[in-house]
Amino acid sequence: MNEIKIFSPASIANLSCGYDVLGVCLDGVGDELTVRKTKTKKLVITKISGHKLSKDISQNVAGVSALTLLNNTSVDCGFEIEIKKGIKPGSGIGSSAASSAGSVFAINQLIGTPFSNKELIKFALQGEKAVCKSAPADNVAAVLMGGFTLVREENDIIKLNSPTGLAFTVLHPQIEVKTSESRALIKKEVSLKKMVKQSANLGAFVSALYTENYELIGRSMQDLIIEPFRSNLIPDFEKLKKSSQDNGSLSFGISGSGPSVFSLARDMSKAKKIGESFEKIYNELNIKFDVHTSYVNNLGIKIIESK
Amino acid sequence: MNEIKIFSPASIANLSCGYDVLGVCLDGVGDELTVRKTKTKKLVITKISGHKLSKDISQNVAGVSALTLLNNTSVDCGFEIEIKKGIKPGSGIGSSAASSAGSVFAINQLIGTPFSNKELIKFALQGEKAVCKSAPADNVAAVLMGGFTLVREENDIIKLNSPTGLAFTVLHPQIEVKTSESRALIKKEVSLKKMVKQSANLGAFVSALYTENYELIGRSMQDLIIEPFRSNLIPDFEKLKKSSQDNGSLSFGISGSGPSVFSLARDMSKAKKIGESFEKIYNELNIKFDVHTSYVNNLGIKIIESK
Repeated sequence: MNEIKIFSPASIANLSCGYDVLGVCLDGVGDELTVRKTKTKKLVITKISGHKLSKDISQNVAGVSALTLLNNTSVDCGFEIEIKKGIKPGSGIGSSAASSAGSVFAINQLIGTPFSNKELIKFALQGEKAVCKSAPADNVAAVLMGGFTLVREENDIIKLNSPTGLAFTVLHPQIEVKTSESRALIKKEVSLKKMVKQSANLGAFVSALYTENYELIGRSMQDLIIEPFRSNLIPDFEKLKKSSQDNGSLSFGISGSGPSVFSLARDMSKAKKIGESFEKIYNELNIKFDVHTSYVNNLGIKIIESK
Repeated sequence: MNEIKIFSPASIANLSCGYDVLGVCLDGVGDELTVRKTKTKKLVITKISGHKLSKDISQNVAGVSALTLLNNTSVDCGFEIEIKKGIKPGSGIGSSAASSAGSVFAINQLIGTPFSNKELIKFALQGEKAVCKSAPADNVAAVLMGGFTLVREENDIIKLNSPTGLAFTVLHPQIEVKTSESRALIKKEVSLKKMVKQSANLGAFVSALYTENYELIGRSMQDLIIEPFRSNLIPDFEKLKKSSQDNGSLSFGISGSGPSVFSLARDMSKAKKIGESFEKIYNELNIKFDVHTSYVNNLGIKIIESK
């Protein structure tokens, strides 16, 4: 194999009760990366379309992660990377994770898959850390493993069961919220009482994924700790939440560190209806926005073609 | 049915990463309650053996819980309760929970089981609250539902999967540690960083119960939040912990609010070996102690006989 084209999807991190822990992989929206072997032993990003980003290997997350991978294996060739950004940087649905996971996934395929997707997480994470030092692994884990993932520790990641049919609606208000700024909003201390409630919800949510108990999924997807601070960053957050509930969602919350928000529904028709209700609300505001709907992507990154 | 004799088992609450959330039901050690219908519409405790406790209905947890149940149903008879305490009060393995859950379970059977065991939790909890106002439901839930239980909220309790073979060793040092005192030791605030780690462990533990991943059960059963404060209450805590690990346990921690400690092992032979190592350590100290070994009791309270 000399060339591979892949689809590296968007993802939701900080999923409600799982701040820095829970991630989920989306479908439909994502980056496309084309990577080809070159004779010259060099790593270059030849083209980036869709959004403006640096092509400098040390400045681009896909470059940083790829370089980390290559420093941990021995290959006789170089690689050219083309990136078609489908996810806007700073949207809160794992834009950097898609690129940094995508490049290591593609190169791993081209060199005969010496690493499992799970093993690639540590390389992809280095890309993430180039943007934000304290970046947790919840986005890259979800993208590389697919489905719902739980980060117990950076190097101990668990793929959870993913009940069928679940569909997400994501609203991305095109306002800038930097991850570092959004993190600064959060208090460094939590009351023990809230900790108990939040962790009970996380435990209940994990149980509900295995028993495919949709009502319990809905009840347990609550964020008492982070949402109160960050929801102010998102225009009409409460209106969106109410509209999501009124349209039968299982849960509603902030995606990553915002500004995107998500709604989770039992099926795609509900998710689409919720999306329409979000559009109605945001059409009243003077803010550009996108709405995506997506089933849970239980596979993660997909190969589009290879030759 | 006019008379019933039941075995109401010990339980471990605050199970490692699940402070105020996770409980597990034990076997072998517990209280025996005999309850019989009487013509006079009155609730009396006629006899308590094993340990000294008040027979006054309003002072005894089994009386308080039974009275709460009777106030929520209409019956034409009275009840006599005999309690044979097998669990020492204040041992940290759910002594009050066994009695308060036992009396409501027995009466419910005698009146034709109008309530499910899950529904009995709220009555049993009133018994617990007579001893400690802020008592969480993790002990009574485990006793009434059996196996591993997760308290999402007082009235939303989830029975988790229980992998086969798991065996507990419990060491009960006969020193007095009151729940209220033990609770006072705990800081009311937790760092967000520790919260994330602890909740990730809880999520991983729940996942491991469903996937029957014994290694992950071991890795995730850690308590970073409560153990550091309470371990000082238990003589030779670190020695016990090391000895448990050296003998191949999956985990070690404080049972309830102490002073009992538990070790969890993959099978009974390991649990017994760990028990012997605990005995060796405590034989050097001038403290009375008991050691129990027990499989996870996936049924909860059992009926011994009825007539």
